[in-house]
Amino acid sequence: MKIGVLGTGMVGNAIATKLVLMGHSVKMGSRSATNEKGAAWVKASGPNASQGTFADAAAFGEMIFNCTNGMGALDALKQAGAGNLRGKVVIDISNPLDFSKGMPPSLTVCNTDSLGEQIQRAYPDAKVVKTLNTVNCTMMVNPGLVPGEHDVFICGNDSGAKSKGEEMLKKFGWKSIIDLGDITNARATEMLLPIWVRLYGKFQSPMFNFKIVRP
Amino acid sequence: MKIGVLGTGMVGNAIATKLVLMGHSVKMGSRSATNEKGAAWVKASGPNASQGTFADAAAFGEMIFNCTNGMGALDALKQAGAGNLRGKVVIDISNPLDFSKGMPPSLTVCNTDSLGEQIQRAYPDAKVVKTLNTVNCTMMVNPGLVPGEHDVFICGNDSGAKSKGEEMLKKFGWKSIIDLGDITNARATEMLLPIWVRLYGKFQSPMFNFKIVRP
Repeated sequence: MKIGVLGTGMVGNAIATKLVLMGHSVKMGSRSATNEKGAAWVKASGPNASQGTFADAAAFGEMIFNCTNGMGALDALKQAGAGNLRGKVVIDISNPLDFSKGMPPSLTVCNTDSLGEQIQRAYPDAKVVKTLNTVNCTMMVNPGLVPGEHDVFICGNDSGAKSKGEEMLKKFGWKSIIDLGDITNARATEMLLPIWVRLYGKFQSPMFNFKIVRP
Repeated sequence: MKIGVLGTGMVGNAIATKLVLMGHSVKMGSRSATNEKGAAWVKASGPNASQGTFADAAAFGEMIFNCTNGMGALDALKQAGAGNLRGKVVIDISNPLDFSKGMPPSLTVCNTDSLGEQIQRAYPDAKVVKTLNTVNCTMMVNPGLVPGEHDVFICGNDSGAKSKGEEMLKKFGWKSIIDLGDITNARATEMLLPIWVRLYGKFQSPMFNFKIVRP
């Protein structure tokens, strides 16, 4: 499949690299078509890897991964263009973290709204699926880095899109996927970030994950 | 030990009942010294159980458990009285849940503040320890109701008070207690409630808990 990955940071790199290894054709998008990190990734990743602007990547992909940082996500998607997102599954991994006031970060939106919902409202013709935002980027595509059972959450308004998201998660190695329901549940998973960043600080490692334990 | 339990709801009842079973003398406090639920609890719980106003319970206790519902917590503590809280460990179990706009509830405070911090600020001479707010009340005093390993979080500014809180948690049966740090971490645990209430809805059962899985 042709996939557009928005963002050339650690998350975009991890996702795009895994997708190429899985045999997909991937175009990484950023503000500039000649992004340095994008170029390095293309060079390292072979003929199925390419880069371009956010719009190039979104136009290219049959499925889109939003791997931008949360504070820039809405602007990046604006550059990607509504027409290039229309009808497509948009896997939103971003978190609305605001580091501008120091550590730990606060959220730019929460409680009665979420970044996932903001994106879905801004692009009603896209099928936004929120997932993977509660784990470190290396774990996103290799959950076995933390041994044992642990969970990834998924939510979104379109069941078909969520099924496609779940298929992808299974191919990434996820065994336990908890479907929380519609996109308003992005509030719940984005609001896991405050404890996530504190646990990261405490453990001095991002290699942990949540498991919901039940009888 | 003499312990004051503020709140006669399910949480107060579970905590107060366990404390009496552990051999403590417990006074349950509420708005009225002749609260009906309080009276039923006293009748069921024997000579070490008594009830009174919030102020009576707070004055009685060497340690205080705040088991009021979050929206009424600050008012209940005001009725309890700063003088009756001074120097004491106040175990705060309340969550700032607002059910007034329907389900799922939102939080009355979050992100850059928390109910735990509001309480600590309002009563700087009390030693506020936030814990147990992320689990169902029956599990609070019987974590084995969900088999296997799972975690309870604790935070607060006073190490001595946290140690006393941890001792109590261990006697309740908790094996894994994660100390997140100072009371600002109440933001992180209170912000677990949005996913908690959604999981409750999904599972149609409150019998689950978070486990932080690490390599």
